[in-house]
Amino acid sequence: MTAIQQRPIGVFDSGVGGLTVVRALMERLPNENIIYFGDTARVPYGVKSRHTIEVYTEQIVSFLLEHDVKALVVACNTIAAVARDKIRQLAGGMPVLDVIAAGAKAALETTRNNHIGVIATSTTVNSNAYARAIHKQNAQTRVFSQACPLLVPLVEEGWLDHEVTRLTAREYLKPILAEDVDTLVLGCTHYPLLKSLIRQEAPQLKLVDSAITTAEVTALALKQQQLVNPDHTGAQYRFYVSDIPLRFQTIGERFLGRSLEQLEMVSLG
Amino acid sequence: MTAIQQRPIGVFDSGVGGLTVVRALMERLPNENIIYFGDTARVPYGVKSRHTIEVYTEQIVSFLLEHDVKALVVACNTIAAVARDKIRQLAGGMPVLDVIAAGAKAALETTRNNHIGVIATSTTVNSNAYARAIHKQNAQTRVFSQACPLLVPLVEEGWLDHEVTRLTAREYLKPILAEDVDTLVLGCTHYPLLKSLIRQEAPQLKLVDSAITTAEVTALALKQQQLVNPDHTGAQYRFYVSDIPLRFQTIGERFLGRSLEQLEMVSLG
Repeated sequence: MTAIQQRPIGVFDSGVGGLTVVRALMERLPNENIIYFGDTARVPYGVKSRHTIEVYTEQIVSFLLEHDVKALVVACNTIAAVARDKIRQLAGGMPVLDVIAAGAKAALETTRNNHIGVIATSTTVNSNAYARAIHKQNAQTRVFSQACPLLVPLVEEGWLDHEVTRLTAREYLKPILAEDVDTLVLGCTHYPLLKSLIRQEAPQLKLVDSAITTAEVTALALKQQQLVNPDHTGAQYRFYVSDIPLRFQTIGERFLGRSLEQLEMVSLG
Repeated sequence: MTAIQQRPIGVFDSGVGGLTVVRALMERLPNENIIYFGDTARVPYGVKSRHTIEVYTEQIVSFLLEHDVKALVVACNTIAAVARDKIRQLAGGMPVLDVIAAGAKAALETTRNNHIGVIATSTTVNSNAYARAIHKQNAQTRVFSQACPLLVPLVEEGWLDHEVTRLTAREYLKPILAEDVDTLVLGCTHYPLLKSLIRQEAPQLKLVDSAITTAEVTALALKQQQLVNPDHTGAQYRFYVSDIPLRFQTIGERFLGRSLEQLEMVSLG
């Protein structure tokens, strides 16, 4: 029998974007085993209705619970925005960490003038989840959000340092910059790949990378709940996806920052 | 009992793009009843594997056959590229028309120098379906294809006449223009909305709009098989989708060119 500490962390996303969170977890918690699920057959969630997202999320969480995870990391802003309560309910007492709570916390620790900008998908922005998470901790903070539906396809096309991406980012950032924000939350797991381009477009902003901040809160939660894996024998990683489309390996490795092994396709629902 | 001629035409797509084909059918065949299915919960298909696309297509065709359609119109290039044989098999002897066969035919009728360009999603381009359809009729024709994964999100963002879209189109068209093509197939049902921008970027090209050409071949097939609806009492239109996301109504009406009524959500699979 496996001690609970040796069980894997379950990380999930609507597609490949959550691999940026896995990458941050691997760096921050090198002894932890990780199981990843990416719903690549049904990606993107950012344009789907709340009901559909909840149904899909329930299927993913069941899959991970069957694999005996000790904690759940919601590595998808859209899922965290829409289905966080549902996930906590399904997870029982197990720690549930998510990119929105982690990003909101880090943004509040970063801002000096209490003007925070958030860029994300349309569904995340319309859910108002970042503003709610921030206001729960500090009602005086002003939050300015901007939906950026083109940034995900631009990242997946690999145009990370391209004139088109630069113009698109400039257009999306304009209304946020007009509000004198000093901190910008990258509210989608694809956006960390655009960090250097966004830095060039808005050098005055401090960027909150929610992959890194999520790894931080996960480390803290495991420690507090005595779930840290004591083994130093080399962590195991397994990656499950609902579809393996063309170029998946290439795109996945761009997000993960290393080669993508132990990859398996499974059908849900 | 409804005479077979009075039954609807079943039109389907992975999402809203097929509404450009419905629009062309409404104009070309104003007496025909139409049932549309758009798989908006699982869009886009252009990045999914062949197997997944076949499974989803089978579910859609079964749904339309249960609704007693007299003909099937595949208003999605990706589905036509990947699953046409499967659809014909499921449809029995009923006419099956599709955007690729129609676009290939029109391109061959249009070109003077036998150099044809095709722009489409990655899956359509990688399937090589346009080149095969064109070469079956004329093996001497040269076909140059270019995957344009960013054009769909740009259309859905509504940036139909935007500098970013112009630069993106220019970049995608460059390799095709270098091959001295005289005819360009818009091999994705979203692209007709970019017709005027593409015309400005490449005024020397004749554009093949596969929505219009698909309506033409459908009209011909109904006539040949004596399936034309004799009623002039006003056609009925019904629209089914697997999800009704944010802004769906707005985007749908942009494609259909009129208000979107009789819209219903259904779950498949």
